[in-house]
This record gives sequence, structure tokens and C-alpha cells, in this order.
Amino acid sequence: MVLANPACDLNGRQPCEHALVDRALNQALHGYEAMLQARFDDVEAVLRGIAELPRGEGFAAQAQELAHARLGCELPEALLQGSWMAGVDMAALYAHGLFAACRRSVAQAPREQADWLAGMAIDDAFIGDCGYHTLDITPCADGRLQGVLPFVFRIAPTSEAVLLKAYAGALFDIEIDMTDWTQRELMQRLNGRQGTRYLKMAVYHYSSSAPSSEGCAAHGSNEDAARDAAAARLNQLRTGIMQAFGVGLGPDVLLLGIDTDLDAIRVHLPGAQGEPLTTLTVEAAQVYRETLGMAVEQASKHIADTIEQAAAGVRSSASVGLKRLIARLLEANLSQIEYVIQHHEGRYERLGHGERFICVGDPIDELQMRNLYYFAHLDTLEEGAACVDVGVHIFEKLNLSRGYPVPVIVHFSYASVIPGARERAVERCERVMRGITARYRGQVPEGALKFGLCVSDATGDERLGLVRECGTGTQAVN
Amino acid sequence: MVLANPACDLNGRQPCEHALVDRALNQALHGYEAMLQARFDDVEAVLRGIAELPRGEGFAAQAQELAHARLGCELPEALLQGSWMAGVDMAALYAHGLFAACRRSVAQAPREQADWLAGMAIDDAFIGDCGYHTLDITPCADGRLQGVLPFVFRIAPTSEAVLLKAYAGALFDIEIDMTDWTQRELMQRLNGRQGTRYLKMAVYHYSSSAPSSEGCAAHGSNEDAARDAAAARLNQLRTGIMQAFGVGLGPDVLLLGIDTDLDAIRVHLPGAQGEPLTTLTVEAAQVYRETLGMAVEQASKHIADTIEQAAAGVRSSASVGLKRLIARLLEANLSQIEYVIQHHEGRYERLGHGERFICVGDPIDELQMRNLYYFAHLDTLEEGAACVDVGVHIFEKLNLSRGYPVPVIVHFSYASVIPGARERAVERCERVMRGITARYRGQVPEGALKFGLCVSDATGDERLGLVRECGTGTQAVN
Repeated sequence: MVLANPACDLNGRQPCEHALVDRALNQALHGYEAMLQARFDDVEAVLRGIAELPRGEGFAAQAQELAHARLGCELPEALLQGSWMAGVDMAALYAHGLFAACRRSVAQAPREQADWLAGMAIDDAFIGDCGYHTLDITPCADGRLQGVLPFVFRIAPTSEAVLLKAYAGALFDIEIDMTDWTQRELMQRLNGRQGTRYLKMAVYHYSSSAPSSEGCAAHGSNEDAARDAAAARLNQLRTGIMQAFGVGLGPDVLLLGIDTDLDAIRVHLPGAQGEPLTTLTVEAAQVYRETLGMAVEQASKHIADTIEQAAAGVRSSASVGLKRLIARLLEANLSQIEYVIQHHEGRYERLGHGERFICVGDPIDELQMRNLYYFAHLDTLEEGAACVDVGVHIFEKLNLSRGYPVPVIVHFSYASVIPGARERAVERCERVMRGITARYRGQVPEGALKFGLCVSDATGDERLGLVRECGTGTQAVN
Repeated sequence: MVLANPACDLNGRQPCEHALVDRALNQALHGYEAMLQARFDDVEAVLRGIAELPRGEGFAAQAQELAHARLGCELPEALLQGSWMAGVDMAALYAHGLFAACRRSVAQAPREQADWLAGMAIDDAFIGDCGYHTLDITPCADGRLQGVLPFVFRIAPTSEAVLLKAYAGALFDIEIDMTDWTQRELMQRLNGRQGTRYLKMAVYHYSSSAPSSEGCAAHGSNEDAARDAAAARLNQLRTGIMQAFGVGLGPDVLLLGIDTDLDAIRVHLPGAQGEPLTTLTVEAAQVYRETLGMAVEQASKHIADTIEQAAAGVRSSASVGLKRLIARLLEANLSQIEYVIQHHEGRYERLGHGERFICVGDPIDELQMRNLYYFAHLDTLEEGAACVDVGVHIFEKLNLSRGYPVPVIVHFSYASVIPGARERAVERCERVMRGITARYRGQVPEGALKFGLCVSDATGDERLGLVRECGTGTQAVN
């Protein structure tokens, strides 16, 4: 039995074409998504082909030719020269191919994302107009949420105002957030800007089709537990800053939920004192249903009215700017709901995990897509181990059970304007890799963890620059 | 052959009594130092006595009586009930006694430090008068530098303006310092204060008696290397902040050296652009010699003139406030030079290491004395392991070689105004302890690491509150 789509009757007479949906943007995003999926699918397809090649004298050359033509990368020559006894290390080649696909996607992002990046509903200018200098967003580390910015929220992932920090169960680190808050607030004052605020958003998730199995693993697939934990963490952060720095300085907070089957969001408006509430306020799927068939202005007004009513219902102190941002998030999400209706038959075929690799460290701004990777934000494994544990557990089922390796990109950002920052980011990559290797020794088969260590320059040009791969037969690529 | 004292001819006719020396303060500090030394010596003495007691039925009661009377602490009852076969675990009792002495010293600090704390030459008011809101001080982690604040510099260790972060070789963490800088600069702006600045001081060290063996281990006991490395780190921090936040915002920097045999300092004035210079500028021992016999005003003027000449010599851009602070540091150090002359025969008997335990994490403001402990500032072992390695290496020679354990206090501060902060500080203690245990497994004999996990409240009353001891037979004391 297929569950009905709560936004639109897919078998009904009315077409699922909402007046507020940006169809051109959806088209561009779909083209991008399909292209990326194909690129990553190709890694496996091409390597399967290589695995079937005769292992005679021409093998290495043929393999390189295939890799070059279809994956746009070189394969490590040493791996292709595997002995007849041990055979060729296909797991190493697979990880190498994935890392190459990532780097290629990031390098080509300016061109490949051009069609949709400028069309994002929410960008720096709009965020500023709503009264915010920073949107600090914590989704769950779960791969199904790694497309939230460009797809679900239609927020430009490269926005200066946006900080993306994923944690298992959306349980962000209070101290790291306070450091970010401090840095951003100081920057505002140094630049003589006043009046804009810091907004912290926590995004929990659930599955409407399989609520007890495909929800958030960190909260035992319990939707209420996931919601309540995220609200509690928001409250801790806000209260902490208010008590440490001053009552008027507490950041605004916004609690959101996502049904990962549909990419439909729900919004919990903050309460009378700005505190996070777990009360359900606005569901985007319901908004879609209610406003389908309306003209643009009427639908927009309905959304604004719905938010006002919800705000009144919880006596919310949400500012005009926050309500405007919420309205824009809801409108943007109508596009994503219709995107899933049009391009994924109303409900993702793959409800559960389908990540291809793990990313730990800082976010890859230029590569964000549902189920492409599991992302654990951390500075050290010592502090972030719980999130990596969840990721490794997912990959035990996804990959190790099939004899596939666990590819891990360790990625840290640095600011090249700070002397020695790149070297320290590289050291951090190495430390975290050593930590991961040591932590899962005995749990993950010897050699099954494959690492790509990468750094990006926050104040310069380097993007996902490869420091080195480890376990893929490639050393010190650049 | 005993090296001559460079400040004063100890065999000469002129008494070593300098007009600028605060003799009452010296007396109070010496009383405190002697009391602390006796308290920590007593731990060993009393436990040796207990070890010699007959192990009959009355043993436990007698041991408790001794500990109570002379150490002011209880011993873990389980340890006193050791089997006749295994004997009593004296190493565990020793570590427990040391930890108890630390807690007692901190608890009694308000009373025991009353005689000298208010007399410190440099306190919050003076720091503010010199134009600084923060003195961020990094000495080496070496135990011989753990008395620098109250003794060598005569800076009140409890000053709000002072941050103390020790690292092996004085090689402080640029990113941690930038975070502290950001937090302090924001606080200034939130409080509407302007015009005061952040001063970073790096303190390297050397030994005039045994330059090639008792200098800084992290720099191969090479004085020039220690100095140059500290200068380079200061330059990185200053340049980093200038480039990331704005040229005018770079912190002031001050490079200092200490001869740990004499506690005599040297000052390297910053250069024309405020950059750290390695040029030698003013030596306190020489200043002592030159001004001995002068009246107060004349001596003070001589110091000021010496600083002005040195500043002119390197075209220093040091502000009036910085020069005033340097003058006060030099004057204060004259007292310490004379302190070592009067109470330690002009040169410490123990030139090398004599630490009794290792402290990792945040500083113990209320307990600072030369060679009492090795202190490695860190947030995670992952980032701070290099400093702990040096500490463990020192204790291999000091303690493990004699069959003594390695007592480690893991201490983190939290702000109780931030919800959940204490729980997170406790978790951090546990994580760091687990990390240390894992890192030195195989290198340090099983069970030889003894831990005391403690937390202090930066915004409330708890000071070195015991979370639990580990390896001392005591679990969950409070």
C-alpha cells in the first residue's frame, strides 16, 4: 500500500501544480540532481567494468582509459599493478573514484550549479532583509538531510550568512555554537552594523511512511523525542547566551521538522519570550493542499495569515522579519514538495539510508544532495565521536555487509589570511583520521576505512583541495 | 663551583636589599610557599609512616587517624583493607593524598593567600590603567614556570583580566587564542568599554647554571630556539588577527624570558610596528645590580630610563601603558630576585624538574607554585597530546623510575550560568582521562596513572570540585 501524499491527491483530477512553485528552478535542480546521481553511479559502474577486464598486459592501460573517459580521473597506477595472487584492490579503486567524483563536482560547481544557485529563494540579501546576519543551521547528520539547504529550504549553500553544522539527532555543540555566535556578533560590531541578529535553526526529522523505522536513529526513530531534544538544545543555547552575555543578546531560535519521505517541512514558532516551543504550528504539506489552485497573491496571503494565526495561537513574539523568513521557507518548500511529486513520484523510492560516503569536519558548501553522504560536523574526534559512531554503524549495514569499503572524507576549512592556518587544518585532518582509524580498529575490518583528507580556504580559492588519500593506493596527490 | 648571582654579589659587603623590593610581600609569599611545600611533603612522609605500621587489626584505624591528623583527609577505606597477599596499594594512597592536598589548598586559599594576594604588584585595576582589558599569558608547561604569576611577575592569579594557558615550549594554540580574543573583544563592546586592548605574553625559559640540560625540553634546552619559537608564534597570532579582523585590532604582544634558576626575567620590547622582536632589551638581574643602593625614586627613574633607551634602540612603538606595565613587571621581579637570594640562597637548589603531579585542562587559579605541577592547557587530548607527552616523559624519570605513580589532575572550568555547562565539563574530564589512559597504555605501567577529575565554576562558587578519582580506590566522592 502506498501512503497518500498529504499535499496533493496524486490520482485526483486536479494537477499538482501550485502557483507559488518555481518550476524553472525545480527543472534546474532536477537536472543537477540527475547529473550528480549519474556521476556517482558511474563510479561503481565503471569499476565493475574494470573488474571484468582481462588482467593481461593491457589491463592497466585499458582501466586508465575507461576511468579517464567516464570518470574524468586517473587511477593510482600502483593499484592497477596488483599481483595475480592478491588481485586488484577494487575497494581502494572505488573509494578513490568516489573522492575524485566529489572533487570534480566541487571544482565544476560554479558551472554546474549556475542554473539554480542564483534562483535560490533565500540568499544573503534576503536573510539581511529579515533582520539576520547569520543563519546557523543544524540538521541531523543523517544523509537524507544533506540536501536541506538547496533543495528543501532553497537556501543558497554558499551564502556568507549561513553556517551549516550537522550532528546526529541535531544535537549541536553548545560551546561551538557560542564560539560562532561570539565571532559573528563581534564581526557585526567591528563592521559598524547594528540591529541584525543571529538565528539558530535546529532541524529534526521523521518518516511518515515508516515512522518507527526510518525516522531519526539517534532518537530511536521517535519523532516526539527528536523534536523535544532539538527544542531543549535550542533552549540551552539561547538561555546560555542570555545569561552569559545579556538578556537582550540571546539568539532567535527556530525549530523545524522534516518528513524525509516527502521533504515537507513543519515549523514550530517560538513562544512569547522567544523560547522554542514543541507545539505544532504550520505544516507545509497542509499549506500546499490548502493553497493549491489559488493565484499567487491569494496563496501568499493565505500563508502569511496561517503564520499569523499560528503565532497568535502560541502568543509568539516572532518578529516581522522572522515571520517573513518562515513564509519564504514555506513557499520555498512548496516547490520542493512539488519537486518530489514530479520527480520522485510523490515519495522518495529510497526512504532509508543510501549514503555513499561519510564526511566529517566542516561542510562541503558546493556539494549538497539528499543521501549523498553522512555529515558529522566536528573539530576533534574526541568531541565528535558519538556522531561518527552513528555514521559508521550506518555504513556497516550499507557497505561493510556487502564487502564495500567505508569511504571517509575528512574536510576542514581554514582562513589563509591567518598564518599557518592551512598547515594546522592539514594537521587536524591527519589527527582526526588517526583517531577514526584507532577508534574503529577491531570493529571495522582492517583496511576497510578509506580516507580522503581535504581542506578548503574560507578566505581564498582552494575548495576541497586534496591533501592526501589514505588506503586508496594514492599518496600525496598534490 | 657555584655560579655568581648576576643581580648581586652575595659575598660582597653590600647587602642584597633593594629599595624597590616589597619585603613584607616576600615574607608573606615565603610563609605561604613553605607552608605549601610542607603540606605536600607531608603526603609522602605520612604515607611512609603508614606503610611502616603493623598490618594487624588496628591498621586501618591507625592509618585513618594519621591521615586525618596530619593530612586533614580520609583515606579510601577499601584501600586500607588490602589483602595480606597483595598488600596495601601505597601508590593509590599517595595519589589520593596529593589530590586531597590540592583541594585543601584551594579551599583554604582565601585565608592562606590573604597575606599576599592583596599586595600583588599587578592586579585588575593596574592592568586596566595600562590600557589592557586582558593579559593572555602563555608560559611553558614546565613545572618551574607554574609560579610565574604570583612569584615571578607578582600578578594576582585570580585577576579577571588574566588568562593563563601553559603549553610545552610556550607554543600556544593560535585558534584557541583567537577564540579568547574574540570573546574578550566582544565583551568589551557589549559593556560599552573602548580603548583598552588585548595583550598576549609568551614566556620562554632557560637555565643560566645548566643551559644545555636544564633549559626548555621542548626546544632541546636551546635558549635561542625557545625564544625564536615563542616570538614566531606571537607574530602568527598578531598577524592572523590583523588580517582576519582588521589591522588596528591586532593584539599587543610581549615576549619574556625567565632564567628558572633565579626567577629573573628579561623583556624583549616589541618593534616599530608592534611586532615581536627577539632582540634582547632589558634584563631584570642587570637592573637589580645597577639600581641596588639607589633610593626608590632614583631606582624607578633608572628603570623607566632603561626601558625608554631600550625602546629607542629597537624603535619600539610600545605604548606608554605597555612601558608602564613592563616597568612594573621589572620592579616586581626585583622582589622575586631578592626572594630567591634571601630564601633560596640566590639560586634554586633544585634547578631541574621536581613536579609532584600533572595538571591538564584549565589552570588552577588558587594553587600556583614553582615545581608543584606540570600544567598543559588543553580542551581535548587530541589537540593537546604533544604537551601531555612531554609531561609524561618528565614523570617517567621523576616518578615511574622510582616506582611512584603519575598523579594527573584533569581540571576544566565551566560557567554555571550556561545550562548544562557543568555536565559538559564533567564529560570533558572523563573524555580526556580516557584519552590519556588509551594513549599511554603500554608506555606507562598498568595502573600507574592516577586521576583526579575536577571542575571549577567560572561564574559561581565551586573551586576544584572533585568529580571523582580514578585509580585511587575512591569512586564518586561527591
